[in-house]
Amino acid sequence: MMKNVEHIGIAVNELEKAEELFSTLFNIMPYKRENIASQGVITSFFRINQTKIELLEATGPDSVIAKFIEKKGEGFHHLAFEVDDIQLEMERLKKEGFTLLSEAPVIGADNKLVCFLHPKSTNGMLIELCQEIKS
Amino acid sequence: MMKNVEHIGIAVNELEKAEELFSTLFNIMPYKRENIASQGVITSFFRINQTKIELLEATGPDSVIAKFIEKKGEGFHHLAFEVDDIQLEMERLKKEGFTLLSEAPVIGADNKLVCFLHPKSTNGMLIELCQEIKS
Repeated sequence: MMKNVEHIGIAVNELEKAEELFSTLFNIMPYKRENIASQGVITSFFRINQTKIELLEATGPDSVIAKFIEKKGEGFHHLAFEVDDIQLEMERLKKEGFTLLSEAPVIGADNKLVCFLHPKSTNGMLIELCQEIKS
Repeated sequence: MMKNVEHIGIAVNELEKAEELFSTLFNIMPYKRENIASQGVITSFFRINQTKIELLEATGPDSVIAKFIEKKGEGFHHLAFEVDDIQLEMERLKKEGFTLLSEAPVIGADNKLVCFLHPKSTNGMLIELCQEIKS
């Protein structure tokens, strides 16, 4: 079950400049930065009620974010839903015919297990499922 | 102040087909359809916790949604934030240099006063402010 819109990912060229812009837009400050070396991105988070806004800057030309911006420009990148049991949700969606971008959940930003659905199977929307890793 | 991610708007070619797809994805049914003649769109709403997902289909070739899909394809269209006082927020953002798409709030879907910010001033994101109309 999708419990909540956990975050919205936005691809940006320059994190610092984008942090300034969104700080002014939201009238709040980002509360953390996180470097996800495995995905070649550095992220910055804002929180608005129960939903986070995650800015994503590529750390190199091979990053998925660099390729995304090259093709589509800056802007909306993905929409993430919080789920209780990511494995169960992945199985359900696979059976329903959605294309998962990984066979098993992977470790993403913000202490989460994540899995993406291919936008070709979701009306052009890159959808992420995420489940908090319990410590 | 941005209180909440009120909804996420997704541009679709065929509302009925998209309703089926997102019903399967979310494992819930849309709870209402609304025709906004002034904007040339018909919308369908899903609710996930405090956030709505709004599917938008053009009702004619001159609709903003038809033009959007022609240019960018189906997918993410806009991100809407709930505010307490839309007039105050519009004044603040105008002073901060954001480009508002209307001088005054207009009546949008779902019993709301709305105003959009031009994506050129918001990192490629079409941002909507919305305030519920009190009856």
